[in-house]
Amino acid sequence: MIYFDNSATTLVKPKEVISAVMEGLTKYSANPGRSGHKLSMLCASKVENIRNKVKKFINSDNAVFTENCTDALNLAIIGTIKSNCHIICTSNEHNASARPIFEMAKKYNIEVSVATPSKAGILRAEDISKHIKNNTYLVCVNHMSNVDGEIADIENIGNLCKQNGILFLVDGAQSAGHIKLDMKKFNIDMLALAPHKGLYAPQGVGVLGFNNDIEIKPIRFGGTGTEGENVYQPTTSIERFESGTLPTPNILGLGAGIDFVNAHFDEINSKIDDLSTYLNYELSQINGVKVYTHPNNSFGVIGFNIKDFGSTEVSQILSDKYNICVRGGLHCAGLKHRYLGTLEQGVVRASLSYFNTFTECEKFVRAIKQISKL
Amino acid sequence: MIYFDNSATTLVKPKEVISAVMEGLTKYSANPGRSGHKLSMLCASKVENIRNKVKKFINSDNAVFTENCTDALNLAIIGTIKSNCHIICTSNEHNASARPIFEMAKKYNIEVSVATPSKAGILRAEDISKHIKNNTYLVCVNHMSNVDGEIADIENIGNLCKQNGILFLVDGAQSAGHIKLDMKKFNIDMLALAPHKGLYAPQGVGVLGFNNDIEIKPIRFGGTGTEGENVYQPTTSIERFESGTLPTPNILGLGAGIDFVNAHFDEINSKIDDLSTYLNYELSQINGVKVYTHPNNSFGVIGFNIKDFGSTEVSQILSDKYNICVRGGLHCAGLKHRYLGTLEQGVVRASLSYFNTFTECEKFVRAIKQISKL
Repeated sequence: MIYFDNSATTLVKPKEVISAVMEGLTKYSANPGRSGHKLSMLCASKVENIRNKVKKFINSDNAVFTENCTDALNLAIIGTIKSNCHIICTSNEHNASARPIFEMAKKYNIEVSVATPSKAGILRAEDISKHIKNNTYLVCVNHMSNVDGEIADIENIGNLCKQNGILFLVDGAQSAGHIKLDMKKFNIDMLALAPHKGLYAPQGVGVLGFNNDIEIKPIRFGGTGTEGENVYQPTTSIERFESGTLPTPNILGLGAGIDFVNAHFDEINSKIDDLSTYLNYELSQINGVKVYTHPNNSFGVIGFNIKDFGSTEVSQILSDKYNICVRGGLHCAGLKHRYLGTLEQGVVRASLSYFNTFTECEKFVRAIKQISKL
Repeated sequence: MIYFDNSATTLVKPKEVISAVMEGLTKYSANPGRSGHKLSMLCASKVENIRNKVKKFINSDNAVFTENCTDALNLAIIGTIKSNCHIICTSNEHNASARPIFEMAKKYNIEVSVATPSKAGILRAEDISKHIKNNTYLVCVNHMSNVDGEIADIENIGNLCKQNGILFLVDGAQSAGHIKLDMKKFNIDMLALAPHKGLYAPQGVGVLGFNNDIEIKPIRFGGTGTEGENVYQPTTSIERFESGTLPTPNILGLGAGIDFVNAHFDEINSKIDDLSTYLNYELSQINGVKVYTHPNNSFGVIGFNIKDFGSTEVSQILSDKYNICVRGGLHCAGLKHRYLGTLEQGVVRASLSYFNTFTECEKFVRAIKQISKL
């Protein structure tokens, strides 16, 4: 079995991550931040250590643990909503940001502009700046497309937003673990992470990092372990965004995932770079194969199609006949397919992790060669 | 170490639950419902099997996996909100339901009545019915208080709501696993569960069960693996409530937790009944101890105070000097303490699970005797 669907979720988790989840089910299995006894305090301190680790990893003032990256994007978008204004997003947005933006736009009479890259391979500050209006209050940028790995120049977009006093939200679902993220350096106000992808964490925890000068309103309400007598949501402390019991085992897994990525960052990404470059080149040499991923993009997300074959059909053949797992279809990214002109066909995506091998890539190329002759 | 804080989270998880989470990190570690390949389909089928298990466990038409029980209550309350109307809740509400209710009341001009029990030990249909108005559209009832285990007669309240065409929401956070829940029999429209408590599941997954005739609007938006081309949230299929990647390992743990509870229901609850009865009686015999839990209530939640000692102080002494973990303070349940008159003192809560022992209870009683002499 070859698993090339790591942009959906990394299949193989490092043993340290699995051990950390285990510890969350056995050693640190009380409720953090709810009681004052030893075990609860032990869990709370573990969770706070990992919160600090996350903050350091992305250079953020604050980090909220959410259900998943989508939940983090909802908190960022709905929590900062302004009626009758203007939002800019990009053609690379996943529905995780596009849907909250368009749903809120409908509800609060917000105009949405979808920026597209003027040059292939990278979405630049110029592509955003031409859409800025007087009432633009939010720019939401997908850092790395989940369809073809296309990246956005978040450093210059961050500068642009700062100069214009516009809130800057980055969806780092695909990029975290592959590109170093620094919220202060890149002037990012809010950054959402999907730890179960490039951070090798378990599914079941997301992160929203945000800086101190950003005002976000909670989108869920409930017990926070603070101000118990108050039937309204507390207005201070990070807990106001974390109603209900936190997923302690997953948070512990996230901590171990970040440690793993920090310890092996260059090794992970030089391997993925190498395998991506190989795959991109070899696939592009096959007659009838169109690769959407830019030749210089080597972040492990290779989107392509074979002739006019349905992408879902190709993925099915790969699964059934070759025991290879890739994803076809629209990848929850309608805006991207509108841009690529692939709304009907979709795109076949092979996505890599540190645990893939060169041999797997060779077998994959051979399989695509065979299918392309069908 | 004696752990009597199982109403916050059950500390000891059955080995089957731990194995199931492990399987979710190793064998079933693809993304369910996102791709069409073998591994993804295998995960999706596992998740759907557990969804069916949950539906059967509570006799529900539908079950949504949420971040936690609070998230489920938010979906139920915010997803069915009606402006300028009237909601009834009870003095037993946890902030998990009270806060979304009061926050929405403020935003949508909703009147809220807080029903209190007219007779000690149980909240009855009569206690609710006297608050019903022409514009009452939602009755939200905590099934078992997390402060003193007080229960609500949900069967008769369900009948009352059905007769009056009022939506009936039950917070089953504390009761699930201890009292058999049957949404159809009890005419419950929406039921929220906290699986990491009485279902011995890992933290990091909640459940909202709801019946077919209930219309709920999603409160978060994002990728659902369906209608990828649509930048608005799909209006059909259960996935519209589950944006983003599901916490597969936790869902697998939930499945194993339900199996465990189903297999040992009588054994679990006769043991907890036995230990609760012992604790309640013995504590009530100690000079200066006031037990809030009704003598006939034996669901494992024993709320008490010693003289006018601060409940947090008592919990701290128990932790520091006796190595016993209980919770003091307000337990995120301000309405309850307003009712009990314990807003200042709070309540010391000892809460049991199947994995507690009689010896632990004896030691606990001895400790309380000693503290009561301070």
